[in-house]
Amino acid sequence: MRVIVIGATGTIGKAVADAFAVRHEVLRASRHGEVKVDIEDPDSIRAMYREVGRVDGVVSCTGHGAFKPLGELTDEDLDFTLRNKLLGQVNLVRHGVDHVSDGGVFLLTAGIFSQRPIPGVPALAIANGGLECFARAAALDLPRGIRINTVSPPFIDETAKKMGFVGGMPAAENAMWYLRLLEGTETGEVVFPE
Amino acid sequence: MRVIVIGATGTIGKAVADAFAVRHEVLRASRHGEVKVDIEDPDSIRAMYREVGRVDGVVSCTGHGAFKPLGELTDEDLDFTLRNKLLGQVNLVRHGVDHVSDGGVFLLTAGIFSQRPIPGVPALAIANGGLECFARAAALDLPRGIRINTVSPPFIDETAKKMGFVGGMPAAENAMWYLRLLEGTETGEVVFPE
Repeated sequence: MRVIVIGATGTIGKAVADAFAVRHEVLRASRHGEVKVDIEDPDSIRAMYREVGRVDGVVSCTGHGAFKPLGELTDEDLDFTLRNKLLGQVNLVRHGVDHVSDGGVFLLTAGIFSQRPIPGVPALAIANGGLECFARAAALDLPRGIRINTVSPPFIDETAKKMGFVGGMPAAENAMWYLRLLEGTETGEVVFPE
Repeated sequence: MRVIVIGATGTIGKAVADAFAVRHEVLRASRHGEVKVDIEDPDSIRAMYREVGRVDGVVSCTGHGAFKPLGELTDEDLDFTLRNKLLGQVNLVRHGVDHVSDGGVFLLTAGIFSQRPIPGVPALAIANGGLECFARAAALDLPRGIRINTVSPPFIDETAKKMGFVGGMPAAENAMWYLRLLEGTETGEVVFPE
């Protein structure tokens, strides 16, 4: 399969791109990468798809949001989280459909805070929950046998340690769940690596 | 309890307000109602809370979104759905916290298309899923024992019939689930009336 990984320089995305590269052709996209894209800008998304041509898989491992408790969230925090993590990934699908081959697949990245929050994550929970339910619904509308699934990873070990937590799931282990969904038959599913 | 119902003139909201009124003091808010509020406008939300003073419950039965398949959704459809159904209700919580008494409760309204979509509902699924996960996360951040839950109603009979479907759950039956959550102890729950 010919697959574009968006966010391929991040902790999750690099591991996913490396896992795919063992047996697929991988195009690595990010803000300053080999293929350039800013998911907050629909024109940038459209330019990326024109540049790369037809792909069999679009795998989004990108998206940022505000990590703040409810009482400290500003309008700007919410707006940023919705524009970046949520709408950025939704727009990768909306503008990508015509560039994905028959029977191709979209994979989006939400996160465990949708279903198992900790204090201080209401904005991320909105984005994650929106993405999970978007993919489930969009699966019913996509043409030509195109599939779509969301992965909601747990705390990733490399990230958790940087944030002072004791640890989590290694990025390489998490990446195997993406590989399985890339090559599988599921659609409209939300997958929680564990 | 002294409870404000937002969207009290809608099909769900009127039934909820009527169910509450049997044994609670109910303030009915809507765009052109007894208490006026436009949930898309944070200033209007703040003015509503100043007008009504302290309440024990804030129950949102409002929120509109685009009912269109993925391929027909415009940027404006998505923006409207996020501003109205999703952020409108999130802002009822953010700006309401200081007006709710200790141990009070917020109830939000999402909808079944989050978990059980039909074709043509990706925008509504985003809003509904975002609300469900927002409430689950916000429950961990709210002060003074304030609770928050989301109700995700099925197709309501009165609405379904207007749209040409054969039927659904009567609004009065759905309203009893809101009454139970108003008077109960749950927090951070997503409830699917059935």
